[in-house]
Amino acid sequence: MIGLGLIGGSVLRAARAAGRTVWGATASRDDADRARAEGFDVTTVEEALGRDPEALVVLAVPMPALPDLLRKVPAGTRLTDVTSVKGPVHDAVHRYAKQVRFVGGHPMAGTSRSGWEAGSEDLFRDAAWVVTPEEADDHLNDVMRLALDLGAHVVPTTPEEHDEAVARISHLPHVLAAVLAAVGAGGGPLALALAAGSFADGTRVAGSRPELVRAMCEGNRDALLTAVDDALGRLGAARGSLASTGGLAKTIEAGHEGRTMLVNQPPRARVTIDLTKPGALAALRNLGARGGRVVGLNGSTADAETS
Amino acid sequence: MIGLGLIGGSVLRAARAAGRTVWGATASRDDADRARAEGFDVTTVEEALGRDPEALVVLAVPMPALPDLLRKVPAGTRLTDVTSVKGPVHDAVHRYAKQVRFVGGHPMAGTSRSGWEAGSEDLFRDAAWVVTPEEADDHLNDVMRLALDLGAHVVPTTPEEHDEAVARISHLPHVLAAVLAAVGAGGGPLALALAAGSFADGTRVAGSRPELVRAMCEGNRDALLTAVDDALGRLGAARGSLASTGGLAKTIEAGHEGRTMLVNQPPRARVTIDLTKPGALAALRNLGARGGRVVGLNGSTADAETS
Repeated sequence: MIGLGLIGGSVLRAARAAGRTVWGATASRDDADRARAEGFDVTTVEEALGRDPEALVVLAVPMPALPDLLRKVPAGTRLTDVTSVKGPVHDAVHRYAKQVRFVGGHPMAGTSRSGWEAGSEDLFRDAAWVVTPEEADDHLNDVMRLALDLGAHVVPTTPEEHDEAVARISHLPHVLAAVLAAVGAGGGPLALALAAGSFADGTRVAGSRPELVRAMCEGNRDALLTAVDDALGRLGAARGSLASTGGLAKTIEAGHEGRTMLVNQPPRARVTIDLTKPGALAALRNLGARGGRVVGLNGSTADAETS
Repeated sequence: MIGLGLIGGSVLRAARAAGRTVWGATASRDDADRARAEGFDVTTVEEALGRDPEALVVLAVPMPALPDLLRKVPAGTRLTDVTSVKGPVHDAVHRYAKQVRFVGGHPMAGTSRSGWEAGSEDLFRDAAWVVTPEEADDHLNDVMRLALDLGAHVVPTTPEEHDEAVARISHLPHVLAAVLAAVGAGGGPLALALAAGSFADGTRVAGSRPELVRAMCEGNRDALLTAVDDALGRLGAARGSLASTGGLAKTIEAGHEGRTMLVNQPPRARVTIDLTKPGALAALRNLGARGGRVVGLNGSTADAETS
């Protein structure tokens, strides 16, 4: 593990709990001290990267720190990451660390707190863990096995489709939470004194560390612009409708429909995917595009659920 | 109690639990049957309104149902309400039920579910209960005592200031939740499969019954337009900044500051307000404007907390 914040620290704990041999490195002295105090093997980035050429190296650093880190990764390394954006990470890996084997990853789990102390070995239990493979091979299987060992299910897709999806369901929520928190605070002490569940829920993620939110959102700029434009269009339409007719039917009903689709996702059917066959990569990506997921690996066969 | 949905049903339960004699009426046969099954006295609207001229009548119906109901209220009735908008309710009371004594009210509590079954006698515990008195008199004291008996604290303000505040911290959150849910669902099955905490929190209130959300938001049209315009301006500025410089610093930092103000509200000092003195109404409104609240009544003295 390189990076021992919320996500990296949780991977380290969960991988050890799953019986794996783990070690880590971090630029944060606080996180390093706390991990060592819990009995973890924390060393320098260079030593961590060089210790075992067969190890699966997991990068868990903010996007802006990635280029410098990738330059230090030895050729031949088996690499994955847990960064919240995938297209720019793939680009950076190809540019700065060309001789590595890489499968992108992104566990959809977190809290509004950050750093080693916010993590836990249960963070990934029942979470979606995105992988963005460029081929179906043993390295992909190892990355999927890590996610499964940590209690997650695996959602295979492309970097582009991942980035579009998370712009809508992860990065836009942070932007809207920030906007809502600022508008609410603009109402002064009375407004804040009256704030209840809807405002507390809608602004919760605005409590996250601003530099982490910025790194996440700014790192997915192109896809986030599309999602923000969609939101601006819908909010502008709501404004126009409220001003002209006094009604919000279309806005509120579309929102209720979207929330219902989230809550009532269709029942899933079990399927298996033979990972040794030609077309396995396309089958995995197709599974993810339809809202499906890999829930187990038996040798070179993936047990999957699809809707 | 007229209206036995989430809020009305919870007032009925909590008032009985506080030792009061209660009865109710509702246009919903389902809610009436369920309330009767729990031993409550449920009758017709006319009988409920006419039974005791000294009773404190609480109206808990959606805004659109209010004019017809107010026409049925006997002259001299001591009236309050729990509607989520106050200016239009004051206007409707003055227009349709001129011979009543009225103090507007609005408990800041709820869930995304609705109807009698969603209610509970604990719903108002530690909640803010807004009152919008037009004078400081014994009827105001009775309305405040009801809120205090139900476990709430009382926030006095004007109808206009209430409506501006709740547009920001209650109605705008519903509009933004609807917009976010629709943008997320627009990402298809993959996006919904990846949705985690930030999307679930940000869209929770979009699961509320659309007709109730519409009644609430559309009933506060003017103040909500101002809040939506504020949000549109901030979201547009975020869009412009992300597109031109790639940065979201101002948006994310303002949001973090707003959230921090919500979470870390300043410590409160105890004060008392003599409700018999001239200027008592202004003192109460000033208390609310500064984020303060009434937490107890001793005879004609209000125990209050102010920041």
